[in-house]
Amino acid sequence: MSKMVFKFGDGIADGDKSMKAHLGGKGANLAEMCSIGLPVPPGITINTDSCKYYSDNDGKWPEGLEAQIRDGIDHIASQMNAGFGDADNPLLVSVRSGAAVSMPGMMDTVLNLGLNDAAVEGLAKKTGNVRFAYDAYRRFIDMFGDVVMGVHHAYFEEALEALKKDRGVENDVDLSGEDLRVLVDQYKAIYRKHTGYMFPEDPFEQLSLSINAVFGSWDGDRALKYRSINKISGLIGTAVNVQAMVYGNMGPGSGTGVLFTRNPSTGENKLYGEFLVNAQGEDVVAGIRTPEDISQMADEFPAAYERLVEVTQTLEKHYSNIQDIEFTVQEGNLYILQTRNGKRTGAAAVRIAVEMANEGMVSKKEAVRDLVEPGHLDQLLHPRFADVTAYVADVIAKGLPASPGAAVGKVVFSAEHAEKSKEAGEKVLLVRIETSPEDVGGMDAAEGILTSRGGMTSHAAVVARGWGKPCVAGCGEIVINYSNKTFTNGKVTVREGDWISINGSTGEVILGSQKLVDPELTGYFAEFMSWVDEFRTMKVRTNADAPADALQAIEFGAEGIGLCRTEHMFFEGDRIDSVREMILADGLEARKSALAKLLPYQKEDFLGIFKAMEDKPVTVRLLDPPLHEFLPHSEADKRDMAKKMGVSYETVQAKVDSLAEFNPMLGHRGCRLGVTYPEITEMQTRAIIEAAVELTQQGVKVYPEIMVPLIGTVEEFVNQKAVIKATADAVFAEMDAKVDYLIGTMIEIPRAALTADAIAKEAEFFSFGTNDLTQMTFGYSRDDAGTFLPEYVDQKILVEDPFQSLDISGVGQLVRMGTDLGRSSRDGLKVGICGEHGGDPKSVHFCFEVGMDYVSCSPFRVPIARLAAAQASMTD
Amino acid sequence: MSKMVFKFGDGIADGDKSMKAHLGGKGANLAEMCSIGLPVPPGITINTDSCKYYSDNDGKWPEGLEAQIRDGIDHIASQMNAGFGDADNPLLVSVRSGAAVSMPGMMDTVLNLGLNDAAVEGLAKKTGNVRFAYDAYRRFIDMFGDVVMGVHHAYFEEALEALKKDRGVENDVDLSGEDLRVLVDQYKAIYRKHTGYMFPEDPFEQLSLSINAVFGSWDGDRALKYRSINKISGLIGTAVNVQAMVYGNMGPGSGTGVLFTRNPSTGENKLYGEFLVNAQGEDVVAGIRTPEDISQMADEFPAAYERLVEVTQTLEKHYSNIQDIEFTVQEGNLYILQTRNGKRTGAAAVRIAVEMANEGMVSKKEAVRDLVEPGHLDQLLHPRFADVTAYVADVIAKGLPASPGAAVGKVVFSAEHAEKSKEAGEKVLLVRIETSPEDVGGMDAAEGILTSRGGMTSHAAVVARGWGKPCVAGCGEIVINYSNKTFTNGKVTVREGDWISINGSTGEVILGSQKLVDPELTGYFAEFMSWVDEFRTMKVRTNADAPADALQAIEFGAEGIGLCRTEHMFFEGDRIDSVREMILADGLEARKSALAKLLPYQKEDFLGIFKAMEDKPVTVRLLDPPLHEFLPHSEADKRDMAKKMGVSYETVQAKVDSLAEFNPMLGHRGCRLGVTYPEITEMQTRAIIEAAVELTQQGVKVYPEIMVPLIGTVEEFVNQKAVIKATADAVFAEMDAKVDYLIGTMIEIPRAALTADAIAKEAEFFSFGTNDLTQMTFGYSRDDAGTFLPEYVDQKILVEDPFQSLDISGVGQLVRMGTDLGRSSRDGLKVGICGEHGGDPKSVHFCFEVGMDYVSCSPFRVPIARLAAAQASMTD
Repeated sequence: MSKMVFKFGDGIADGDKSMKAHLGGKGANLAEMCSIGLPVPPGITINTDSCKYYSDNDGKWPEGLEAQIRDGIDHIASQMNAGFGDADNPLLVSVRSGAAVSMPGMMDTVLNLGLNDAAVEGLAKKTGNVRFAYDAYRRFIDMFGDVVMGVHHAYFEEALEALKKDRGVENDVDLSGEDLRVLVDQYKAIYRKHTGYMFPEDPFEQLSLSINAVFGSWDGDRALKYRSINKISGLIGTAVNVQAMVYGNMGPGSGTGVLFTRNPSTGENKLYGEFLVNAQGEDVVAGIRTPEDISQMADEFPAAYERLVEVTQTLEKHYSNIQDIEFTVQEGNLYILQTRNGKRTGAAAVRIAVEMANEGMVSKKEAVRDLVEPGHLDQLLHPRFADVTAYVADVIAKGLPASPGAAVGKVVFSAEHAEKSKEAGEKVLLVRIETSPEDVGGMDAAEGILTSRGGMTSHAAVVARGWGKPCVAGCGEIVINYSNKTFTNGKVTVREGDWISINGSTGEVILGSQKLVDPELTGYFAEFMSWVDEFRTMKVRTNADAPADALQAIEFGAEGIGLCRTEHMFFEGDRIDSVREMILADGLEARKSALAKLLPYQKEDFLGIFKAMEDKPVTVRLLDPPLHEFLPHSEADKRDMAKKMGVSYETVQAKVDSLAEFNPMLGHRGCRLGVTYPEITEMQTRAIIEAAVELTQQGVKVYPEIMVPLIGTVEEFVNQKAVIKATADAVFAEMDAKVDYLIGTMIEIPRAALTADAIAKEAEFFSFGTNDLTQMTFGYSRDDAGTFLPEYVDQKILVEDPFQSLDISGVGQLVRMGTDLGRSSRDGLKVGICGEHGGDPKSVHFCFEVGMDYVSCSPFRVPIARLAAAQASMTD
Repeated sequence: MSKMVFKFGDGIADGDKSMKAHLGGKGANLAEMCSIGLPVPPGITINTDSCKYYSDNDGKWPEGLEAQIRDGIDHIASQMNAGFGDADNPLLVSVRSGAAVSMPGMMDTVLNLGLNDAAVEGLAKKTGNVRFAYDAYRRFIDMFGDVVMGVHHAYFEEALEALKKDRGVENDVDLSGEDLRVLVDQYKAIYRKHTGYMFPEDPFEQLSLSINAVFGSWDGDRALKYRSINKISGLIGTAVNVQAMVYGNMGPGSGTGVLFTRNPSTGENKLYGEFLVNAQGEDVVAGIRTPEDISQMADEFPAAYERLVEVTQTLEKHYSNIQDIEFTVQEGNLYILQTRNGKRTGAAAVRIAVEMANEGMVSKKEAVRDLVEPGHLDQLLHPRFADVTAYVADVIAKGLPASPGAAVGKVVFSAEHAEKSKEAGEKVLLVRIETSPEDVGGMDAAEGILTSRGGMTSHAAVVARGWGKPCVAGCGEIVINYSNKTFTNGKVTVREGDWISINGSTGEVILGSQKLVDPELTGYFAEFMSWVDEFRTMKVRTNADAPADALQAIEFGAEGIGLCRTEHMFFEGDRIDSVREMILADGLEARKSALAKLLPYQKEDFLGIFKAMEDKPVTVRLLDPPLHEFLPHSEADKRDMAKKMGVSYETVQAKVDSLAEFNPMLGHRGCRLGVTYPEITEMQTRAIIEAAVELTQQGVKVYPEIMVPLIGTVEEFVNQKAVIKATADAVFAEMDAKVDYLIGTMIEIPRAALTADAIAKEAEFFSFGTNDLTQMTFGYSRDDAGTFLPEYVDQKILVEDPFQSLDISGVGQLVRMGTDLGRSSRDGLKVGICGEHGGDPKSVHFCFEVGMDYVSCSPFRVPIARLAAAQASMTD
């Protein structure tokens, strides 16, 4: 007969934390705590195999289970010096489910099991508290009836309310012991009415029914659905934990509390928590009385406190992590009811990691691998609100947390206005329905950006993240009216010039100017990041289009530029005029002459970036967006352009019309522009190579990598490569010098990934553009998916927004295929990623697994990617 | 010493047609014709291995090659009773290249090789024609100089022109023998000046240099580029053919001609060709004299003609195909210079196939496999112009041949106008910049459609092909002016009401009303198609949205409907009002009430289609396009809609704005609509199932297959399947009856193909929607790709338009992966294709290879698909 029931208690346990598959998470951890000598109320865990037997055999228990449970109850009873159903000294237990992974949908807790008409009197006598005993009894009947037998809690609640009304009292606590005794009788009648049975007096019958209810809930609709939605499979069943009850409400010698072993907000190494005398766990949560600070316990319960301090140290050491602990003191004796790793802020996580390593409690490797989540760092890199609880009442809307950090400013509704206000020394927040490349000047001038439309990868969101500027995007709760210069949530109307604050980490839009604190990147953060790099093997680059961004990224540890977009440069200052001249140009020569005007600007850009990135590789992507993105939208702007260009309004309008596309995302852009207008590729190559040669001649080390976007066929790449090589060779000849450079491509079209072997024969590097690759693999437009994507995530049709975290089962297949095929035809092909996913920790793990050489992300995500990359290399 | 030179002549040959790899196509066929006893001028073929040796060894000949060539020349000389360089009786030869596949870019022909100052006199004496001899000589020097030595032909031409001017004559033929003798001297001087050498007098030197020129041209830039572009690899070199010259211009006993063994236009079994007495092949082509009909030869050259008839029969039998033959009669002797399979019209191809099989010349299997190309059938299924040469002068523009067939009508510029004219009994052609779903009524009313924008898969093209209605699309050469009601090509302006004709098979737009002939689908066609089906294993279905189309398709042999789009039904008559009501509806109940109005219409649609397709499966695709496609575009139409719906113009405009998308192709459409508005799926399912049950109760056999569009994740499918199943079960309960039906999905999103194993666990069939799959795999919008796709095809960046012929190396990988993964998780999963590619022969072959159960295409392509499917099963 196999072992099905695992005992724990008094420093000894049959199980341990490695046995989660058979004892469930809760059971394994209770056993573990017991083994290391912590004061855990004794109990037993019935294994998951028993549950499986029950499911497979129409609700029968396996042979011998009953005997093992009875033996287990004896074990608990003897540890507690009480008897199951003993009228004088009754043993009361709790029954809880517990699978290997946390899983809502299964049966809840039953407390105070073991009470009956005789035992309740024993309990009253033993505790000297009739009210306590009958309150426990009526709660037990309610819970048992509801959870085990399916009698709805509302029926019991009804009786309680009626009684309170009858007694003329308002609160439950105002009912006397005698009142509760009456209530118990009413509860039993309700139970009988709805189940058809008498309430079971036999404690073992109560227990058996409860165990069956737990077993049965494993195959209940809710649990099945939860497992299906969350793709949980391979589990055989749930375990059942039966544990002795302890009470913190047995008088002034009792109490209950919760604590963190260190300050979860700052990381300071000092106990942090609360304690309530003569109370149960629920009372702390209910907030009826104000709890005392945990340090007060030293005076009031010196022995228990001393023991508690020992326990916290033991648990921290044992779990190598800050612990979040629940405990109860019953008549002076300390019991630990739960421990788990404590949630903490980013600042606390970093400080705790550094201090625990310095204290020798964990190794540097463990500190990096286990104690800080990549997301924690995000909080450290941006200004944040001094007190996030202070502004709760002033939150008027919530949008998408598109770019983290807090910002405060006066509302403006146009990019132009933002620029002017900034020049006048004002702090502004730019509020737009959505932003377009024309707005970048104003976005740069603003402290933060708020849009009412667009997703996490809308123009506003992407640009803002690139700059580390706070942004709340797609805030559909507000309606913006450009003509009135107002926005409203339907109740409050905000006017131009009003102060507002936005929290880009939560998506909150807040009235008024909230207080900010600046990020601190020295001290613990700097020390921790230096450790991170000791364990990291994959490189981290940044996406940056301007020298200032590049320098910021280097400060954050970037090892190169993985994506330097060249089109943003086209919008700056007067350049857009030359771009528009090129677009309007009638024929090759006119186009070339317009491009010649752009050349010095582009060269200047590259001189700046190459210099900023001295000694580091810089991947420059050739022009990507469709040409119509460079043309004005409003009639006024079009008239303005016509005047500047010296052509008629109709000419401008005709060009706008002829370039209009139904689906610009799938239109004439990327290398398709370079193929039809090779002179654009020539101009850009010339700017890159001339800048590179000039700097090399000045002794600056440059490593340019020219990246052709949107390749779908190797023939396109061959075409563009020929143009680039010919141009570079011409520049080398003119300048009588050479520099090494690479020609590679973005893999962002599904077909490119599918035919990567052919492409890699020609391309010297690959960079996965997973934004576009996700759009095309899913058939989602980032700009439009807002109409259904949030609902998809809500309905769990998608577990995550695939633009935020790489879709490993779909898009990931193409990334893996592209990498493997590419390397099959070019040994050691350099492979990276430059989509938004390069800064998402889970995606970084995947990139590491696939064997990428580097990930590239916006400057403010570089530290996050560094940590994720280091962690990935440790879990491999 | 291995054999490098292969002789042929006088009924014997060293090689045969199987040796193309070593003798090239031309050499192998010359040998073959010789072997079967045809009168071929004797010659030799130098093998491709020799060419390879030459390339690999810096222009050296392999050991022994010279001896073998000299031996080969002796063989030719003895057959011709002449001597190489013999001053009295010179042997003259031609030298030609010839690789295993036809390959432009290699060296051209050298004729009359062997002439020198002595031999020319011998030739003059032997032929009694000084002019003939010197004309041959000067042509030889020109050709040899140009082709072998790189002296540009223009230099020789200059001298010729000067001489003619000097002699005061206009035509070459007016120069005398003496004049040509002078010209030869001038040519030799030119040769010397540009090469630095004397013109070689030694015939073997002439030959060696020519052979080297052929060998060298194999690695020439042009040949290398051609092989690279056309992906020709695995060939080792070119062969060289040296063959005795024969002359049709040796007097009245000589002549030359070309013929087809049967009439290539009608297929009639009667020689069809032309003959010219005392002339060379060039003269027939040049059209200087009018050739006689081939039948005249019977009188003038009775012996040669009798021999020719024998030869044509032998060749037809030998090649099992109609032959296109070139021949020369030299002084009464017949020589066959070339034979190849003859190009023919569709009508001829079918008649020839049927008659050759009935004559026992080929088996039925060969007739189906080899004698008719699927494209041939296309010509038979549509009206065509009675005489395509008659209208050449009236062609005013050329667009894309978007839907084959010829149409004639008066020009109208709006769908409404087209409908009214049709009602008034007029034939019209609808001319639009582009069409949209609102125009379908007018498109249906028109004889044909002409658009100035959009590609082969634009709305106009797809709809027209579906109906077999001629369409010329994307005709960028014309500019349409709706306000003036005119269109122009810049020279000619066509007004509303003018007659024009369009040829949808060629893309031509023609002035006036050209004469049409109707297709004939009986006789040879019917017999041939019945044979086709004997060999076909893959099913052929049709894409049809209306009973009339379905019936047409059945007539063409469709075995079911593979794609019944439901959105087209939404535009008919008043239905669009209910659709718009649904779109405007505020909340679920209002939406449901609008949908309830649509239900009877949809049910009527399905009753009609199921009945038309009795006994055959019908795949119904649920609503696919984004809702904004159902809203009006112009202000007038929007005002009209507002009035009809009883709402304000602003309400309509606001809805139009809120539904507008940047990239509708990647937006809120397909199953994404069904997920957010399950009531649409419910209404459509109810219409399908109610219709199916009703017909079943009437004894009509129906096999509905409900297809969920645009699935990207299995979760979407599970969601929609649940709605469909619940609705069907409800209908079954209400009607107290059941029908069998399937629930499956389109695979048209790359991610669906990548995760097809998961999807097939839930879906009962797959249908590849390769239109959208191509769009997303390439990242091309069909509506926009017109801006670069034609240039891509021109520049050979794409070998073919991937929307016309499935891109096997990219999109094909996903189709194969999707099929294999799908069947890995569901045994015998039914798989088909319903994109435009289902009617493209090459794509049909691929679908067969992948193992699909069926292809589905527009009704007018069903016969083509049937033939392609039959041929695929025979080549497997």
